[in-house]
Amino acid sequence: MSDPSTVGRQFVDFYYQTFDSNRAGLASLYRDMSMLSFEGQITVGTKNVVEKLTSLPFQQVRHVVATCDAQFGSPNGSILVTVTGQLMIDEETQPQFFTQTFHLYPEGGSFFVYNDIFRLVLGM
Amino acid sequence: MSDPSTVGRQFVDFYYQTFDSNRAGLASLYRDMSMLSFEGQITVGTKNVVEKLTSLPFQQVRHVVATCDAQFGSPNGSILVTVTGQLMIDEETQPQFFTQTFHLYPEGGSFFVYNDIFRLVLGM
Repeated sequence: MSDPSTVGRQFVDFYYQTFDSNRAGLASLYRDMSMLSFEGQITVGTKNVVEKLTSLPFQQVRHVVATCDAQFGSPNGSILVTVTGQLMIDEETQPQFFTQTFHLYPEGGSFFVYNDIFRLVLGM
Repeated sequence: MSDPSTVGRQFVDFYYQTFDSNRAGLASLYRDMSMLSFEGQITVGTKNVVEKLTSLPFQQVRHVVATCDAQFGSPNGSILVTVTGQLMIDEETQPQFFTQTFHLYPEGGSFFVYNDIFRLVLGM
């Protein structure tokens, strides 16, 4: 089985590169059973998840990863990844801190997103 | 199967009550295959996890939960929970922000911690 840290970091780098350049391209990473909790709002399935992500009210965004921790999420080779980092949005000069957890399921030599939980870390 | 939000919140409340009053009591929530990533350091198994948690260099700590998001982590009824919140440590007046992700596995009508990833959210 693949090393969780390596898979986790590669996935996270690819995910945020895609998010920051072509959000609709994230569709390939989700499946019909995929779940997204975005700031407490739950959506299920590729179509709904991508609609949610592409409708977020900002034009330009850049994710800067600060930490990325990964573990096997099951004996079947799923991988759990938790990220902390900063979001640079549009013209704002102050970054926003966020955390995001992905649960990646193996599929044909690659992985898709089974769980996705995103939260801004507020109060700072 | 149980509702993830309800299970997640009940677990989190119990976990932090126990952490803040009797850290050694957390042993009952872990198993030999349990994994903890604490600020990037990985430990495996109840004994090692509890040694890590009880050796943390503070006397008094209080967790204040800000957000708690939960989803089914698999078709088998495991539950994924991501928390954000604040840590009040000893005599410090400034809280520290943290995020923690638990992956809970069902066992005999209850749950144990399969994955546990803790990170302070720094830079604020």
